[in-house]
Amino acid sequence: MGRFEDALSQRVGRRGFLASAGGALFVCSIGGRRFEIASERDVARADAAAAAVRRPPRARRESVDSLSFETPSPAPGGRRREYWLVARPVRWSVTPSGYDEWHARRVPRIALTALAYQPWSAGFARPLGPPAIPGPTLEAEVGDTLVVHFRNGAERLRQALTVHPHGVRYNPEYDGAYLGEFTRAGGFVAPGEEFTYVWEATPDSVGVWPYHDHGPNHTLNTFRGLFGAIIVRERGAPRPSREYVLFLHNFPPQLTNAETIVHCINGRAFAGNTPQLRARVGERVAIHVIGMDSNFHTFHIHGHRWRDPAGQFVDCPTLGPNETITAAFTEDNPGRWLYHCHVFSHQDAGMAGWYIVDP
Amino acid sequence: MGRFEDALSQRVGRRGFLASAGGALFVCSIGGRRFEIASERDVARADAAAAAVRRPPRARRESVDSLSFETPSPAPGGRRREYWLVARPVRWSVTPSGYDEWHARRVPRIALTALAYQPWSAGFARPLGPPAIPGPTLEAEVGDTLVVHFRNGAERLRQALTVHPHGVRYNPEYDGAYLGEFTRAGGFVAPGEEFTYVWEATPDSVGVWPYHDHGPNHTLNTFRGLFGAIIVRERGAPRPSREYVLFLHNFPPQLTNAETIVHCINGRAFAGNTPQLRARVGERVAIHVIGMDSNFHTFHIHGHRWRDPAGQFVDCPTLGPNETITAAFTEDNPGRWLYHCHVFSHQDAGMAGWYIVDP
Amino acid sequence: MGRFEDALSQRVGRRGFLASAGGALFVCSIGGRRFEIASERDVARADAAAAAVRRPPRARRESVDSLSFETPSPAPGGRRREYWLVARPVRWSVTPSGYDEWHARRVPRIALTALAYQPWSAGFARPLGPPAIPGPTLEAEVGDTLVVHFRNGAERLRQALTVHPHGVRYNPEYDGAYLGEFTRAGGFVAPGEEFTYVWEATPDSVGVWPYHDHGPNHTLNTFRGLFGAIIVRERGAPRPSREYVLFLHNFPPQLTNAETIVHCINGRAFAGNTPQLRARVGERVAIHVIGMDSNFHTFHIHGHRWRDPAGQFVDCPTLGPNETITAAFTEDNPGRWLYHCHVFSHQDAGMAGWYIVDP
Repeated sequence: MGRFEDALSQRVGRRGFLASAGGALFVCSIGGRRFEIASERDVARADAAAAAVRRPPRARRESVDSLSFETPSPAPGGRRREYWLVARPVRWSVTPSGYDEWHARRVPRIALTALAYQPWSAGFARPLGPPAIPGPTLEAEVGDTLVVHFRNGAERLRQALTVHPHGVRYNPEYDGAYLGEFTRAGGFVAPGEEFTYVWEATPDSVGVWPYHDHGPNHTLNTFRGLFGAIIVRERGAPRPSREYVLFLHNFPPQLTNAETIVHCINGRAFAGNTPQLRARVGERVAIHVIGMDSNFHTFHIHGHRWRDPAGQFVDCPTLGPNETITAAFTEDNPGRWLYHCHVFSHQDAGMAGWYIVDP
Repeated sequence: MGRFEDALSQRVGRRGFLASAGGALFVCSIGGRRFEIASERDVARADAAAAAVRRPPRARRESVDSLSFETPSPAPGGRRREYWLVARPVRWSVTPSGYDEWHARRVPRIALTALAYQPWSAGFARPLGPPAIPGPTLEAEVGDTLVVHFRNGAERLRQALTVHPHGVRYNPEYDGAYLGEFTRAGGFVAPGEEFTYVWEATPDSVGVWPYHDHGPNHTLNTFRGLFGAIIVRERGAPRPSREYVLFLHNFPPQLTNAETIVHCINGRAFAGNTPQLRARVGERVAIHVIGMDSNFHTFHIHGHRWRDPAGQFVDCPTLGPNETITAAFTEDNPGRWLYHCHVFSHQDAGMAGWYIVDP
Repeated sequence: MGRFEDALSQRVGRRGFLASAGGALFVCSIGGRRFEIASERDVARADAAAAAVRRPPRARRESVDSLSFETPSPAPGGRRREYWLVARPVRWSVTPSGYDEWHARRVPRIALTALAYQPWSAGFARPLGPPAIPGPTLEAEVGDTLVVHFRNGAERLRQALTVHPHGVRYNPEYDGAYLGEFTRAGGFVAPGEEFTYVWEATPDSVGVWPYHDHGPNHTLNTFRGLFGAIIVRERGAPRPSREYVLFLHNFPPQLTNAETIVHCINGRAFAGNTPQLRARVGERVAIHVIGMDSNFHTFHIHGHRWRDPAGQFVDCPTLGPNETITAAFTEDNPGRWLYHCHVFSHQDAGMAGWYIVDP
């Protein structure tokens, strides 16, 4: 036995060591208290604290705290793009196949009670599909407004939720962020309540951005899956032939039945479970990759490279939490290709998938 | 109790686990020895080792080790920009309000004996203010020389300190780095001594850069707060209406009375303690953000986005240790906005603040 | 004794804590199983599992799995650039001098049985040098094919190895990646076997890229040193006067006789052991830096700055796993300069070296 192992087995033991090395603990600030989330019981305590947070009275310390704001309208020629979203818990399978096709091995069937944005039809008439990770992609062109009708449908969770967008323009009422005594209307949507966010797609909104919960318990609820993407294009800009959004994130063991952290793409782990991307030679492909945990990642696609925004050819760029990179290219290379985060400890713990290119 | 928690409580216990998960340990190389800094006592041992480091005799192995260098003068039309800095210990409050305004909660009053650069008037006649984190911002235009008169005023710390700049041009005498037997004059300023650094603002110095200690105990002393910023502009370039420099860094528990790591902006943690930025609609704003610890960060401002150097619109770019990103835009969005690092574990442990935009 | 230290010494002890803090554990997926590599014995178990992986029968689920591919030829005017590489174990000293010249201190003599690519002459007639970290740099111009004859010469390791390139174009046969049941010919080169990879230097391949093992045990074998660089230039493009490739990576203690992780540049740690770079004033210098572990890094050279691909002046850019940044400039600053990763915990644990500039 090596001396390094000696030290380990004497002191920490394999599972304790795993827990440490997996970086499993995380910290939340909820309802006036700090929580170190190291266990399932801690999760329950954090949820209870979040449930006790009341809609804050609005403090007026700076003159801006007393400003009122008009709801924006579309620019001339622009449109209102309406979405109906309901935040709901959903039983979610992280590894539905129980198999990692890259390494040709069985993997545990991991599941959790996730929290996700579910798309509904106009007027919350009927669901358009199940709650999913990520939530629906919201699309607009420059000059449009994104009108997002949000319902906190997680009544049993008993805590306020929100929708906070990146990239688009909004006034403080539509920030969707709990800010303690400075919280505006959209920053606290209580269980069962609805709120309509109105955001503007301005010329500097062009790009792909995340949206996510920013309520009193946002870290925990974002880790549970409460996020999605926004795509803003120039007016009349053509869409790529194939367009994908991939969120790189993880489920910590506090939330799952797994013993260790599992590194995910769109809520799934291991090739055969993660999204199978598809394109045909000659098609214009855009793969938007967004970081949605506390880790940094690099994104690699076998057999492909593309220009980064500075014009340099890359095949493995860095992205951080809530940052987006886009791999855009005209497809010319048929075959079955692996895509993955190139952080070794992430790729080997699930953050990989297949990209199938037909001739 | 979940099985994950079982494992934890059997093996490590909450506080031990916290210590591990917080990444609290760090490693320094000082005075010919390696130190693992896991405790306040280790800090004292590292300081004692640093105090024992003597000014090294200068080795001459390569011919460049025997070169002598002339002190540079300003380019035609350039000026000497003189600063007087004294490195001094200072009792520093990390959370002076004892309150986190974002999460509307009390936080512990955390303090430490920091080490900071203090601005003095010409000739070290009188202090221009208290030692502060960060130290004074040094400004120059292309063609100027920055002439930094430095005094190691931390006599009781009994160890050499320096000023090492990024971005500007300097010859080896003014590198400000302890390099063992190859140390030049500016790389070892003993307690009570003074040294004048002369750096050139060349055309490729345009930008915003950190300066920091690079003496024999630089990791520990930089963690204590011994850093500041340099801004180099094109000759005659206008200044933004509002210009801020934010350092993202942390104080490990070895240095404070806190139980866990605290993630800071300019030496403070939690909204209401961190810098409250301010601007008015129509003003040109530049917020320079510099990484100053061993972590990677992303920087997000609610309600705002800007072009990165490649021309892409961003609102959450990555930055690493001693790297700078600048959020520059013309203000158009009044309100109270949150700015923060978007690494969840950083934002929830203090790395957030207010940006107030008046109409 | 501080309260932080109390907690530590009661629970984990210094060595256990170090192990955790060093992030020493890593996870591999090999031969249908998941391995947590926390000890030398775990390494042996992972190697045994990798030795048991058989060449997979090729599954045909998607039509692309049945495609056959032609071996590419050079574009008109292009050439075949042939290399002969043998993967072999090699006893490797990480700190041959036993001395850290930056901090003027003795360091332990650290060694391991590394795994490296060795350059051979045409037809595997004779070795052109010892196996080295990194392996030989493969060079091509746009329009060329890179023809890499690879022999798995690590017979005693008894596991398949490969060569997977970044940046160049290749069809699935030449991907060099083990993909479970979807593995193509180049993704499984058994001990003693040979395989010839043919890759194309296309216009979007211009740049500097890593290549590395991507066989069934790729994480462990890449950590052992099985990587190198590819440089693709425009046709007829001049070379810089001085060109260096630096890999930033680490050896975990599971692989060495060291107690903790050691942070390396090209397989060596600490100034005086890491590559000593050299240039002369007036020369065009290009230093290509590639991340090759699970960490993110920043790269700083004292006394120098350069344009990043977006045109901004930088002296400390971020790079992630398998990402490349290039510091390119015309040398104008003689002296002995330190270069290093600016993550404090990396620079102090070996990731630094000398750059000597003659007048």
